[in-house]
Amino acid sequence: MPQTTEINRRIVLKQRPNGLPDENTLGLEEVELVQPADGEILLRTVYLSLDPYMRGRMNDTKSYAEPVKIGGVMTGQVVAEVMSSNHANYSAGDYVLCGSGWQDYFVTDGTGVVRNLGKTPENPSWSLGIMGMPGYTAYAGLLKIGEPKAGETVVVAAASGPVGATVGQIAKIKGCRVVGIAGGSDKCAHVVDNLGFDECIDHRSDSFAEQLSAACPDGIDVYYENVGGKVLYAVLPLLNAFARMPVCGVVSWYNLSGLPEGPDFGPAIMGTILRMKVKVQGFIIYDSFPESTYQEFIGDMKTWLASGRVKYKEQIVNGLENAPAALNDLLTGCNFGKIVVKVG
Amino acid sequence: MPQTTEINRRIVLKQRPNGLPDENTLGLEEVELVQPADGEILLRTVYLSLDPYMRGRMNDTKSYAEPVKIGGVMTGQVVAEVMSSNHANYSAGDYVLCGSGWQDYFVTDGTGVVRNLGKTPENPSWSLGIMGMPGYTAYAGLLKIGEPKAGETVVVAAASGPVGATVGQIAKIKGCRVVGIAGGSDKCAHVVDNLGFDECIDHRSDSFAEQLSAACPDGIDVYYENVGGKVLYAVLPLLNAFARMPVCGVVSWYNLSGLPEGPDFGPAIMGTILRMKVKVQGFIIYDSFPESTYQEFIGDMKTWLASGRVKYKEQIVNGLENAPAALNDLLTGCNFGKIVVKVG
Repeated sequence: MPQTTEINRRIVLKQRPNGLPDENTLGLEEVELVQPADGEILLRTVYLSLDPYMRGRMNDTKSYAEPVKIGGVMTGQVVAEVMSSNHANYSAGDYVLCGSGWQDYFVTDGTGVVRNLGKTPENPSWSLGIMGMPGYTAYAGLLKIGEPKAGETVVVAAASGPVGATVGQIAKIKGCRVVGIAGGSDKCAHVVDNLGFDECIDHRSDSFAEQLSAACPDGIDVYYENVGGKVLYAVLPLLNAFARMPVCGVVSWYNLSGLPEGPDFGPAIMGTILRMKVKVQGFIIYDSFPESTYQEFIGDMKTWLASGRVKYKEQIVNGLENAPAALNDLLTGCNFGKIVVKVG
Repeated sequence: MPQTTEINRRIVLKQRPNGLPDENTLGLEEVELVQPADGEILLRTVYLSLDPYMRGRMNDTKSYAEPVKIGGVMTGQVVAEVMSSNHANYSAGDYVLCGSGWQDYFVTDGTGVVRNLGKTPENPSWSLGIMGMPGYTAYAGLLKIGEPKAGETVVVAAASGPVGATVGQIAKIKGCRVVGIAGGSDKCAHVVDNLGFDECIDHRSDSFAEQLSAACPDGIDVYYENVGGKVLYAVLPLLNAFARMPVCGVVSWYNLSGLPEGPDFGPAIMGTILRMKVKVQGFIIYDSFPESTYQEFIGDMKTWLASGRVKYKEQIVNGLENAPAALNDLLTGCNFGKIVVKVG
């Protein structure tokens, strides 16, 4: 059933998943549409962003954000249109960026609205990608923690995803040798041919570690960490002295329900950090950088997109009801570029 | 056989150890004493420092320093006396700090000499400890990477050792709650009663992790890492948002001959770094900080020692021939304070 003007469809967390989410994890509910009171606006979701962090919110563990409650609407950023407004700052037809989650409609007094995009944003869905959270995550993590210098080698996994693709293209702009890692020859070809990375290694290959080593003849100076797992373990022996590792995600581990079998790579991780004087720093884009960094990002990224130095690939999924399957595609690496759900 | 004036005794690496060094690892050789040529000096070792990093130098792995060669003299810092000098910068009777290793005598043109301590240094062996490498390691790692703020909780293991004891005492001076970790009730009592830590937990206790958690009711803001292993794994769930972890050593893992059995704590380490936005940074005291940091250290530490705000405990082992056994004591946590070998 598509978006209507009478009913609010919403996807809620029915049960915390053990491993990859399954048919018992999320459920679609229909509730009556509420009209906005005085001082409130009614938002209609146009695009919903899907991102790896969503898996973490399904867990009941201490993290940087509250877990989604059982029965609660799944967290997510959306681009929405203001349908009717009783609020001085918004008028019908405005597009806004909002954290209202996996649902058709949202009534708010402005709480949750991140930004008013105006009535005619050029690429409204880009606010969920290259000009939004994933783009800013790539920019700030790479430049402020990774601090790449011209001539250094930068390695990034999930290289065809919205963060990885942006990290690599920015590193190329900064004069680095850039080696991507992706799953499958199609993605690898895209990363080299369209995004301009120097090389891209298929992590599904049996000789992945050897190929990565061969692609980094001068070692690795910056490893932008977004996957963890065997990619991280292949990177460790290649890190140079004073290497930097911004930690943006460990998506290959998000579905773990406990610690995996050994051997224990703890000594390899910590021993490498010690011997090679590596800096490893986790960050969350919302609270790890000052506002000035965000302003730099917006300015630089607009320039790079306009000049074609940064290219951006979106994959549009139609229908809110298809969001759960698309999230699993994302968590298992079956997507290609930034996934956005066209809700209405 | 003690130090004589005719023979140079030296301890060499016979074979790389697999695990803890044993009787096949190191051997004592006697060679003829060489006299200094023009431009050279003859040094007689008075004190030899024993430090955990020495185990790493026995391995043939990529690290921050060259491994000791098979048949080569074991690396180590010493305080030595100039016996005779054909060099303009030194005269007989000067004490020097020198990296000449595990031997009675050393002839040099000045190469390897770190500092001239003059003819009457107040506590010559302290240049190997509180006023030298271990003291500086504690100071710079804690203050420049750990950046402790008043009211925060700082945790340090090997709390009765020369680095850990200094870290904790400096953290107390900076107004932090300080929790030490040590092996055995004697060490723990010393750390609290004599060094002024708020608490000290015995890592040999079955309820170690629970006791550590209870001792850190507000979580951990700075974990000064020098041991790795189960201490690190007990610390991880207690780390606060934006915690800092200077990595100075992982001594509990130095004798590993391969990765230990599972489970794999890699996901726990990296997941914590991500979620809690932790900064983990390895450092080597010789090349990770500017000269200005060293000057700050010398000034602050002299003041603190003179006022009694920092206390320092040495354990003197007599005789070069007893150094191998004393190093093993150090690697297995059987020492108590800074170990210095009185060679002559």
